[in-house]
Parts: sequence; C-alpha cells; structure tokens
Amino acid sequence: MQVKVVLREDEMPRQWYNLAPDLPTPLPTPLGPDGKPISPDMLAPVFPMNLIEQEVSQERWIDIPEEVLALLYRWRPTPLHRAYALEKYLGTPAKIYYKNESVSPPGSHKPNTAIAQAWYNKQFGIERLTTETGAGQWGSALAFAGALVGLEVKVYMVRISFDQKPFRKIMMETWGGKCIPSPSPYTNAGRKILEEQPDTPGSLGIAISEAIEEAVTDSSGKTRYTLGSVLNHVMLHQTIIGLEVKKQLEKIGENKVDVVIGCAGGGSNFAGLAFPFVYDKINGAQIDIIPVEPASCPTMTRAPYTYDFGDIAKMTPLLPMYSLGHAFIPPPIHAGGLRYHGMAPLVSGAIKSGLITPRALHQLECYEAAVTFARTEGIIVAPETSHAVAAAIQEAKKAKEEGKEKVILFNLSGHGLMDLTGYQKYFEGELHDYALPDEELQKSTKVLEGLPKL
Amino acid sequence: MQVKVVLREDEMPRQWYNLAPDLPTPLPTPLGPDGKPISPDMLAPVFPMNLIEQEVSQERWIDIPEEVLALLYRWRPTPLHRAYALEKYLGTPAKIYYKNESVSPPGSHKPNTAIAQAWYNKQFGIERLTTETGAGQWGSALAFAGALVGLEVKVYMVRISFDQKPFRKIMMETWGGKCIPSPSPYTNAGRKILEEQPDTPGSLGIAISEAIEEAVTDSSGKTRYTLGSVLNHVMLHQTIIGLEVKKQLEKIGENKVDVVIGCAGGGSNFAGLAFPFVYDKINGAQIDIIPVEPASCPTMTRAPYTYDFGDIAKMTPLLPMYSLGHAFIPPPIHAGGLRYHGMAPLVSGAIKSGLITPRALHQLECYEAAVTFARTEGIIVAPETSHAVAAAIQEAKKAKEEGKEKVILFNLSGHGLMDLTGYQKYFEGELHDYALPDEELQKSTKVLEGLPKL
Repeated sequence: MQVKVVLREDEMPRQWYNLAPDLPTPLPTPLGPDGKPISPDMLAPVFPMNLIEQEVSQERWIDIPEEVLALLYRWRPTPLHRAYALEKYLGTPAKIYYKNESVSPPGSHKPNTAIAQAWYNKQFGIERLTTETGAGQWGSALAFAGALVGLEVKVYMVRISFDQKPFRKIMMETWGGKCIPSPSPYTNAGRKILEEQPDTPGSLGIAISEAIEEAVTDSSGKTRYTLGSVLNHVMLHQTIIGLEVKKQLEKIGENKVDVVIGCAGGGSNFAGLAFPFVYDKINGAQIDIIPVEPASCPTMTRAPYTYDFGDIAKMTPLLPMYSLGHAFIPPPIHAGGLRYHGMAPLVSGAIKSGLITPRALHQLECYEAAVTFARTEGIIVAPETSHAVAAAIQEAKKAKEEGKEKVILFNLSGHGLMDLTGYQKYFEGELHDYALPDEELQKSTKVLEGLPKL
Repeated sequence: MQVKVVLREDEMPRQWYNLAPDLPTPLPTPLGPDGKPISPDMLAPVFPMNLIEQEVSQERWIDIPEEVLALLYRWRPTPLHRAYALEKYLGTPAKIYYKNESVSPPGSHKPNTAIAQAWYNKQFGIERLTTETGAGQWGSALAFAGALVGLEVKVYMVRISFDQKPFRKIMMETWGGKCIPSPSPYTNAGRKILEEQPDTPGSLGIAISEAIEEAVTDSSGKTRYTLGSVLNHVMLHQTIIGLEVKKQLEKIGENKVDVVIGCAGGGSNFAGLAFPFVYDKINGAQIDIIPVEPASCPTMTRAPYTYDFGDIAKMTPLLPMYSLGHAFIPPPIHAGGLRYHGMAPLVSGAIKSGLITPRALHQLECYEAAVTFARTEGIIVAPETSHAVAAAIQEAKKAKEEGKEKVILFNLSGHGLMDLTGYQKYFEGELHDYALPDEELQKSTKVLEGLPKL
C-alpha cells in the first residue's frame, strides 16, 4: 500500500510542455487597444525578451535551464499521494491520487513560475521586478524567488487584502521584498485614484496598473513586470507538475488516468497538472479533464469567449479568453485566487476546443470537502484547492454509483495555513452559497460590447 | 552541488534509538510527591502501558511498528539540505547542513511523536486523548495524529494563547480536535482557578492539571493523557530525525560531523537530531553537540540540576532535570516553545555527563539570523528554530576565523508561517533582548528548596 510516490533528482523533467502548438485551433493573437495584433517587441518594456519568446513560442518542448532545475530542486520533485484514507471513507472503488504542491516554502505551486521568471529576468540583466497581488500568494512566491535568485521585488497589494491579511506582507518582507498597499502615492495611476477616491479598497486592476507603470517608467531599463497566472509562459513553467506526475504514475504501473482535476482562477495550477494529459487526449486518450471554478465567479461555465483586457485599467493587451468582463467585481468569497474575471488564453482555448470540461461549485460543498480531506488525509488545503478536492470527491462518488474502478487525479495546489479564517467562518456557519445572478452576468459583460470579437 | 539529500521509503530507519542505557550515569528515578520512586503501574491511569514500557526501557534500539512507519511516510523521510547559499553569504569554509522538519502537514517535528503516541494508545484500546498546549504547536500535531489514527483529541490551550493565536484553534478543529481555553469550567482544577481568579490568563501548569484530571477521572478508562516533550518516550520517537540524517550523510560520503545544533525548550527536537550523534560521541567521536535556549529562560545554562515537578500544579512526578523552578513564569518572548522551566531528563543527564554543551542566545540575534536564513535559503523558520540557525551561524563564523572546513548540522524544527507576528515586531523594532537577572533566578529557584536533591 504505497501512500506516496517520490522521484529522484535525476528523474526530474528536463523540459516544459507547451500546449500552444497542439491546440486544434491556434490561439488568436493578442491585440492592442487599437484592435491590431501586438508584436513581441511591443511587450519589451514590460517583459524581458527571453520570456516574450516563450510567450509566443510554438515549440512543443522547451528546455528547463539547469540552474532553474537546481533552484526548483530545493522542494521539487513534489510527492504524489494515493488517498487511501479518503477512498476508504468514501467507500469508493476509485483510486484517488493527488499531487502535493503545498510543500514549497511559500506553500503553493506559484514558485514554479516565480523562480523561472526571476531567473530569466536576471539572465536578461534585469535587477528589479514589480508585480501585483490580491490574496498575497503570488506576491509571496515572487518575494521568495527574488531572494533565491537575487533580484529586488516590489509588490503592489490590493489595499483591502493588505489590511485584512497582514501576515502576507510580513512573509514578503522576511524574504526581502517590498509590499505596499495599492493604490499608492508612488505612481500616476495610484495618485489619480487616491485623489478621486481616498477611501478606495483598491482592486487587482489598479494594482496591475501601478506595477506595470513602475516597470515601464524606470529610466534605467532594469525593471520589469511579472504576472503569476494567465499568460502562456506561466502555464508553460507550471507543466513540470503534470510531467512529474506522469513519471510517478509510470513508476507504480498506473498506466491510465480517467479524470484529471484542478481548481482554476487564472488557470496556472490547473494547466500545470492538466496540459500534459491534454496532450495525451489530443493523441487519442480518453480522459475527463476538469477545471473547477466557484459558482460566484463562473468565468469558464457562463461567460462568453471573447477578446478582453486582463485588467480593469486596460493596461494589458486584449487577450482571447472566457471573461466576465474586465470590470467584474466578484463577491468576497474566501478563495481569493479564484476571483479573476478572465481565464488563461491556453485554458480558454482548450475549453473552446472541447478538450476540457469546466465545472462550477458552491463554496459550502468545497469547505465540507476540505474538512473531510483534512480529517482523512491530514492536509489542510487552501480555499482555492478545496474546489479541486470537492470535484474529486464528486467523481469518486460517481465511480461508486457506477461501480467503476476509475483513476482520479487532482492537484493539491496549496496549503491553507495562511487562510484559516475561511475555515473559521465555515465552522461558525457564517458562509453561504452564492451563484452569480443572470442579470449581474449581463451587466458585467456589457463592457465587452465595444471590443473586438473572436 | 547537491542542495538536498533524500531517502527512499526502504531506507527509513526501522528502529528508534534510546539514549538511556548509554548514559555514563544512569538517569535517577522519577519520584512521587512523597519522595519515593514512582513505579510504572502508578503511571497507568495517565499513560497506556505500552508507552510506559518505552518510558522506562533500557533497550538501546526499539522497533518502529510498520503501521507507524506507514503513517510517518506520509511526509517522511524529510530532506537534508546543504545550505550553499548561506555558506556563500557568510563566506565560511564550513559546510552547513540542515534537516528540514518543517515539511510535515502541521509544520514541525512534533507529529513524529504525536503519531507514535496516538498509535500506541489506539493499540491499547484507548479512544480519547487529552493534552495541553501553550503556543499551539503540540496541540495541532496531536489533533493531526488523532485524525490519521482515529482517536478523539481534546486540547487545553493556555487562555492567553487561545485568545492571541486563534488560528491554532482553527487548525485543531479542522483536524477534528477539540480545543478549549484553560482554565475551563469542565474540571475541578479549572473551576477552582476560575473562582479565585476569573481573569487569569492561564498557564501551562494549569492546562496540564486540567488535561491530566480529565484523563484520570474518565470512568470508562478509555482516556489517556499525552505530552509533547520532556519524557523519555517522546525523545525516543524523535530520534528518527537524527537516524535519517546519518543515512543521508552516509549517502553523500560525509563521514564526519563536527557540530550538531538544535534549539531546546522541553528538549524533543534537539534530542531527536542529536542523540544518535551523542551515541557516536560516547563511542569516541569528537563532536560538539549544542542545545540552544533563550537567554530569557536559561534552564540549561544557569539553573540547578535537581528534582522538580514538570508543572506548577505539581501533578507530575518529580523529574531529575535542570530547572528554573516549577513556578517560573518566563517573560513573553516569541519563541513560545522555548519557555518551559525544565529540561527533558535525558537531555539534562547528557549535559550533566558533559556529552553536550548548552548555549543561551538573545532574541535579536536569533531573528537577525532567521531573516538572513530566509533571504539565502528561502525558508521562514519558527521563532524557536531561529535559535538553532543563530548558533549555526556563530559556528560557521568561528570556522571562518579558524580557517577550518568544519561540518555543521542543525535541526530546522519548524516553519514560522503561523508565527509571523514575531517577525513583524522584529522589523518594527519592538523586540528587545532580555537576560534573566540573577535575583529573578534566585527567586524562581526558591521553590526547589524543600524538594529532594540529586
């Protein structure tokens, strides 16, 4: 009864997998605000050219630099667990496996791309990185990566999160990063908002605007901006998750996976686990691949597939994606990482092609699943991750009904030790389910009307 | 450049190491309040007999049950890291290794004995465990173990910690444990204190009294008490740490360790790493073995070696140990796990025998070391663990001065993600050094006067 499968250092994947060349329909090109295609060099003030090359690459396999591998090796390869205790509790004939990304020092999958992005920026001669963060997971991961790679990191954190989650700021500072509440007085974008709305709680859109502004206006040319999800190169760096899993399953002779599950906000942890299996599906394998989102922010299940901006301030290119509209303000559910209005273009493309099948879940079912998981498997998962756990339990129950010994795999994208307030509110009965009403959806997607269509 | 050494499942140690039979001077027997030796069956209402047997065992090697190994395998063997980045930062010729116990789901070494104790209790037919917790690390670990083994867990948490650290309570509840503030209205001991001092902040002593009372007064006989440090069987279960390290060092051909370091409150993480090396020292090896404590609670470096109670309420037997006196109330430094008035009898015996050399450090040096460590090695350590990091840095600097390529090993006993308030206060300049004044020491050790001497 092998509860855990590990890999040796020499078994780590040496290449990332890029889904872009394998999508049945090629990804539509990102557009500028004028509706014309964005060229790589238009992105040069924002990102270093080596990452822009990855962003637009049509190569299926991209080498992972040895130095990046050495940094990832500090906590990777991560373990693959067999959830015997959960299976027994559910009385299911299904085998449930989970990939444990919570063992990284910041506690989630985010450092997989933070380390890679920091390293490529350093290679390109960059000295400072800026970014934004909502709940704080991405900001923490980038501060961690900055410490290991040797780059300054400045994180604009949405003011309301900054006030409500002071520990995230302390984490970033301990790793040497700077974390300031957004809007701030340090940028034009921030000052403008502060003048108009001194008491604003801030938003991810404002924070993105500030972080991009700081990167592109640094006259030394030594500052760049980073993003922790959505973009193609972020999905690419995360595929080490699924590529490791394939080797781990092979080691124990598990030749066939029936269901692959990940929660999806911007899409990166889902893509990281799932894309190597999407590749198998494109090549004929029968696999149900399920990205899971909250019913309160139903980007994949109810929003249109269209061009939209990545941020409310329209600083980013227009990206082809499922989107609730760049001005969408989701209700304050606790899974902060799943509150994004859009979805990664590669994930969106895979949905559009019918390769993956999104599912929306309510938060009470997710917390119930997370508590069941903690009491059987012993790991307290992040509120985001609870969506993957809940979908895995749904699939295991379905397998029980059907009497099938299915193989179910999900991504345990992070632990919940920094997010216990959500559990507390769940235990105290303060949480309620909320599905986005149709009229809210219609209202929020109005901003898409004047934009280019797909 | 191997930054991490891992072990396979089949390389896990199959036996724990018991230092008791190897101490040059045998441990003095614990005494009852009447000054007469305690016999094993006098402990039977408190602990199950299989653990009492381990507590008094003179066997050098004790088999780890296969089922315990399978539970530990969920996160063990833990990695051994080489701190190349820290070495480079310090410019030291020393090699620094650290054992990473922070990767367990509760985030510290505590589950090593929590799992074992829960399993032995279950084997003995016990259904419910009680315990006390101060800062909450032990209570969390026992709740985790209760979930995996299938036992009810009730934790009496010192009221002031209960109020100041609400997240620890939520962790325990998520794992299915009950956590209540002590003093409580549920025990005679608690009611008595509440009548006399309704506003008391509580103390570890009161919480121990409540937990023991609940265990021994349960008429079903299905409840027992557990302790997370100090006792011999706890030290025993933790030796898997050092035994794994020895195999890991052997794997990379590192044949000689010069310095072994662990922080020590009750003594368990230090003992877990160090005792297998104390064995080598008894057999002729030259090793400096250093337990590190805070200067504010200088049990090992300034207190007498004597018989004392383990708790302020005198519910425990009299144990032979270094002790500041069972009524000692340490100042509120942040390393909550290092604030105990006594020291494990086995650790105390090793000090008395000259096998290990304790050291006391100030908290500002420890936080400075922890921040250096986070910014080089990427792991944010617990405030307790920062004492081990600081001592390792002292030794690495000494090696630099001496121009010696020493091998330094320390125990990274836990991460600090649940204790970031201490880092915040450090960054804000609110922390100060404090050494226990001589007159305070004399006052606190006065309670020892009427007790049996060693």
